[in-house]
Amino acid sequence: MKQSKLFFKTRKEVPSDADSINASYLVRAGFVQKHMAGAYAYLPLGLKVLRKIEAIVREEMNNLGGQELLMNIMQPKELWQKTGRWDEMNDVLYKSGDEKNQVAMAPTHEEEVTTIVKTNISSYKDLPLAVYQIQTKLRNEPRAKSGLLRGREFQMKDMYSFHESEESFSNFYESSKKAYLNFYNRIGLAAKIVEASGGVFTEKHSHEFQVFTPVGEDLIYYCDHCDFAQNKEIAEVKEGDACPKCGGTIKADSGIEVGNIFPLETKYSKPLEAKFVGKDGVLRDMIMGCYGIGLTRCLGTIVEIYYDSAKNRMIWPKEVAPFAVHLISLGQNQAAEEIYQDLQKKNIEVLFDDRDLSAGQKFAEADLIGCPQRIVISAKTLAEDSIEYSDFSGETETKLVKISELNIA
Amino acid sequence: MKQSKLFFKTRKEVPSDADSINASYLVRAGFVQKHMAGAYAYLPLGLKVLRKIEAIVREEMNNLGGQELLMNIMQPKELWQKTGRWDEMNDVLYKSGDEKNQVAMAPTHEEEVTTIVKTNISSYKDLPLAVYQIQTKLRNEPRAKSGLLRGREFQMKDMYSFHESEESFSNFYESSKKAYLNFYNRIGLAAKIVEASGGVFTEKHSHEFQVFTPVGEDLIYYCDHCDFAQNKEIAEVKEGDACPKCGGTIKADSGIEVGNIFPLETKYSKPLEAKFVGKDGVLRDMIMGCYGIGLTRCLGTIVEIYYDSAKNRMIWPKEVAPFAVHLISLGQNQAAEEIYQDLQKKNIEVLFDDRDLSAGQKFAEADLIGCPQRIVISAKTLAEDSIEYSDFSGETETKLVKISELNIA
Repeated sequence: MKQSKLFFKTRKEVPSDADSINASYLVRAGFVQKHMAGAYAYLPLGLKVLRKIEAIVREEMNNLGGQELLMNIMQPKELWQKTGRWDEMNDVLYKSGDEKNQVAMAPTHEEEVTTIVKTNISSYKDLPLAVYQIQTKLRNEPRAKSGLLRGREFQMKDMYSFHESEESFSNFYESSKKAYLNFYNRIGLAAKIVEASGGVFTEKHSHEFQVFTPVGEDLIYYCDHCDFAQNKEIAEVKEGDACPKCGGTIKADSGIEVGNIFPLETKYSKPLEAKFVGKDGVLRDMIMGCYGIGLTRCLGTIVEIYYDSAKNRMIWPKEVAPFAVHLISLGQNQAAEEIYQDLQKKNIEVLFDDRDLSAGQKFAEADLIGCPQRIVISAKTLAEDSIEYSDFSGETETKLVKISELNIA
Repeated sequence: MKQSKLFFKTRKEVPSDADSINASYLVRAGFVQKHMAGAYAYLPLGLKVLRKIEAIVREEMNNLGGQELLMNIMQPKELWQKTGRWDEMNDVLYKSGDEKNQVAMAPTHEEEVTTIVKTNISSYKDLPLAVYQIQTKLRNEPRAKSGLLRGREFQMKDMYSFHESEESFSNFYESSKKAYLNFYNRIGLAAKIVEASGGVFTEKHSHEFQVFTPVGEDLIYYCDHCDFAQNKEIAEVKEGDACPKCGGTIKADSGIEVGNIFPLETKYSKPLEAKFVGKDGVLRDMIMGCYGIGLTRCLGTIVEIYYDSAKNRMIWPKEVAPFAVHLISLGQNQAAEEIYQDLQKKNIEVLFDDRDLSAGQKFAEADLIGCPQRIVISAKTLAEDSIEYSDFSGETETKLVKISELNIA
């Protein structure tokens, strides 16, 4: 993409209503635009990152055996009354419609997915089953805040699994942890699995995926030696205690919850009558699990981790970067054009700064946009038939490379 | 994909509340599931088709120079009051939120996109600009009907263009017609460009893309010789008249409107103050156009056109088929598995019916699922080292082909 054509505008001033690093950065860098409290529009650069996060989660869920479907934003009152959540979740539901046809805008989809599955499945032979979707969710957050971290309109991947036995459920639940860690690893986040409350979903404990950072809203107690970790809300330990599992030392840190998985048991299958006939001919309620990832929250978290406030510079992790390479021409558009064409032929995503601006302006914007690799071509480098190449995500120092030897995979 | 693993179930009985061929077929074939009046969930097969339609529209809009972004479902009251549509469109808006923070769920996005563009653009140098999104829309249709053709929750591609002059607008508007026709052609629909009313969007005429079929809600008068065509709502001719353009004969037919494009002039830029500084230094309102395609409506229309009620058989157009090839094993799973692996290596999307069912059951379901190519392997074909190959979308009769000579691109 040529930067002269790209619909974006960076800003020098910090937005007056930005309440977080991610909101401030993403607005200044032209990735998102605030629409109202808790709702952002994704401009071309921001959408590119979001779509990459989506593609990765899709791959990981497919590898786990999940099948993608797409449910609805609107949820009929009668259906949600069956599980009691029409009233229970009243505070966060956007409700609408006339008296006879009342609907709520879905913040979660247990009711709809359970209805779908029970309509299509009736035998143990069709179990286990895992289905997922990537969808916009609406939630009337009393205090929308922290940019993309706690919004009223946001993108989620939600998966639901259905099983004939606790054993089948447990196996899948454990596999889902691995798929989740793969996903976070690929998008550049070091997530820790933390035991937490089941909230409105279940009376059992759930598991959260927490990314440690000082801006996190959650407090996590974890062992410095083994994988023991609990959210403060259910913690049986405090900082400095001996780990109940291995005797190591308990530490405390703030985390952003970037995903969670819940054992649902028969909480939804029972009231919605999602039953199956077992091998023994007996009719039983399906055992369920649900598995969520806030995709826009992940995007915000990546910024919290990778944005360098001191240098006013971002470096996106490679797999989610808006472009793999930022090609900056300093008055050498003709030579740069050849490199641009060549990289495009190799299917490398390049942002080509072909604009008539000063080197200082171009570098300041490039630092803000944050492509992990950069190529600079100037009169000076061209005199040596070369470009300047930098790989900010690796160990590569900026170095002079012959154009004929430029080899970006 | 192995059919034994696919989450789907076909039905023999016509759903009692299906009011159209597309709803009846898509539910029976396991592509969609009705959620409430005017809202359907897309099951794996249906979502595959929808995603292909989305990918094609994305390609065509990118080729036209459009840049993708993603706006919001929720729309704040204050913004929509500025254009008067908070009240004007009251009947079809799902409104929600408390007194102080009222929102409506967007059926269209002129208000938000104009705000985004005016925030990022101020000079003629940045024009023309075209941005688009693919998004869920909500519309409180008094009479949701005809399956996917008139829903309350549906998927749309909406594009908006911004210009400094009428001439620039006209050029883009004409190019958009070509991009639209490419899109319809690729998804298998023969769309005709028809002059229509501007509705609530503009006082000028708009253009609709109509697919002729008896179930269409619109009546179109068109010339049998030239491209003259008008929607009845604005028609200056009637059936049998001489064409005012070429003297040919005016005919009449019913059509489904699968898209529309509107000249918006300054209807939204004026109240929302989307201005730019011209070459001459003068501040002017941007000239706008909007360009919509109902993607789920397109999906429904494809079914209306391609589903054969008499044979209870569907043949999906190649570019949108859920799978390119249906590989049916009649008790020869081992030999079929090799063909399956081979086709997958070639990146050909195959649905492999590996289930333990009768040939009759398999063929009946395959007819319903509607993959454009079919491979059947049975004891009889295998005895000759062959398979039976059919290409329903081409002229190919079913023929016996040596396995070693099977060549699907």
